[in-house]
Amino acid sequence: MANYKIVLQYDGTRYKGWQILKDTELTIQGKLSAVLHRMAGHPVEVIGSGRTDAGVHALGQTANFHLEESRPVEEILSCLNRYLPEDIAVISAEEVDERFHSRYHAVEKTYLYRIHTGAIPNVFERRYLYDYSVPLDVERMREAASFLCGTHDFKSFCANKKMKKSTVRTIFRIEFEERPDELRIFYTGSGFLQGMVRILTGTLIEVGDGRRNPSELPAILEAGNREAAGYTAPACGLALLSVSYDK
Amino acid sequence: MANYKIVLQYDGTRYKGWQILKDTELTIQGKLSAVLHRMAGHPVEVIGSGRTDAGVHALGQTANFHLEESRPVEEILSCLNRYLPEDIAVISAEEVDERFHSRYHAVEKTYLYRIHTGAIPNVFERRYLYDYSVPLDVERMREAASFLCGTHDFKSFCANKKMKKSTVRTIFRIEFEERPDELRIFYTGSGFLQGMVRILTGTLIEVGDGRRNPSELPAILEAGNREAAGYTAPACGLALLSVSYDK
Repeated sequence: MANYKIVLQYDGTRYKGWQILKDTELTIQGKLSAVLHRMAGHPVEVIGSGRTDAGVHALGQTANFHLEESRPVEEILSCLNRYLPEDIAVISAEEVDERFHSRYHAVEKTYLYRIHTGAIPNVFERRYLYDYSVPLDVERMREAASFLCGTHDFKSFCANKKMKKSTVRTIFRIEFEERPDELRIFYTGSGFLQGMVRILTGTLIEVGDGRRNPSELPAILEAGNREAAGYTAPACGLALLSVSYDK
Repeated sequence: MANYKIVLQYDGTRYKGWQILKDTELTIQGKLSAVLHRMAGHPVEVIGSGRTDAGVHALGQTANFHLEESRPVEEILSCLNRYLPEDIAVISAEEVDERFHSRYHAVEKTYLYRIHTGAIPNVFERRYLYDYSVPLDVERMREAASFLCGTHDFKSFCANKKMKKSTVRTIFRIEFEERPDELRIFYTGSGFLQGMVRILTGTLIEVGDGRRNPSELPAILEAGNREAAGYTAPACGLALLSVSYDK
């Protein structure tokens, strides 16, 4: 058995998300498994660093899978890129220790949320942007974000209301990048709950446009209730940027 | 009557090109005319600086149209961007002299052709790139391009074999920009024949990958025959970048 780690990019627009669902549903994991099954001649389970929701993109999703027989990584890379649809690309592949697990061993993830703030639509990147033309006060958003950094119970920011496992996560940093016509928010943390980055973004937007005060954030965290937080920002603006592992 | 000049961008992927065809066909000119007709309450003819082919994009197409009653340009701009589909955007609007004509008065146009040369597909910009993974020798392409600059009869590079008007055009410059995984070719000229930039690109690619010699270019021009030139590079890689007018 050989274990391979791959880094991939996808335009999530057409997909029902990362995780395999019924055969009739389009998923990233499903597409990868199908190509690898055909290549290897045996079923291949593709383990992702985490699930991305329907419509969410990735610039650096990481996954691993085992093959019964070892193959050159160049062959795996070219086979995947030849047979995957044009909205999924594998940017690197390497053989790794057989114990490597892309989900269990991930130590840090960064997500990027892109908000298009300009009045003129961006026709070329519209699939990767959330159009929000109400002016946003980034200083207020920064202040609100400061309450979110650190280790907290993020139950209020979890889309899965029946979540039974721990909802405690650590956010290492939230960074804002103001560009012409665009606000980018980078979230780096130990891991994120289902829908968490989109709910964090919706809540920060509500602070930025004046509907909420930055000082409300501690009480929202304290509530442990999805209703306390803001709306869920749309999937199209979100991308999984990178996943880090211990060296 | 008031005359307005607009600059627009579009992702041409879905469209049958600039020019209005039957009502059932999707065209940029058709979409603009329909929104302006509804806004103005009378039919509006939209004059483009030139036609773009089916699937060709624009970052700076220029057009003009007359309205029976004058309106603030901000109102025109916001109305167009509100009612146009999300793959067409108007980036500026201004009232101009009533004699201004976006086609007759254009003095210079620049087109950009983007060739994706990397082995890893670009999932996010795939709609705007032509994937060509055979190595290209850009020095040879530059040499070939030098024969194309200047005033020539470009009949060999015209997709319309029944063209009755003059096929003489002036290319001011052809510039190459090498980026990681991408080759960009900028064509600036007085105007371009139907399909001309795509046939120029296909011919330059055939020089770049070794199928032709740069020294063949004068004979190709001399032939005055479409068969003498190279293939037509696909529409998806092409974008009309800008149109210039005399001050």
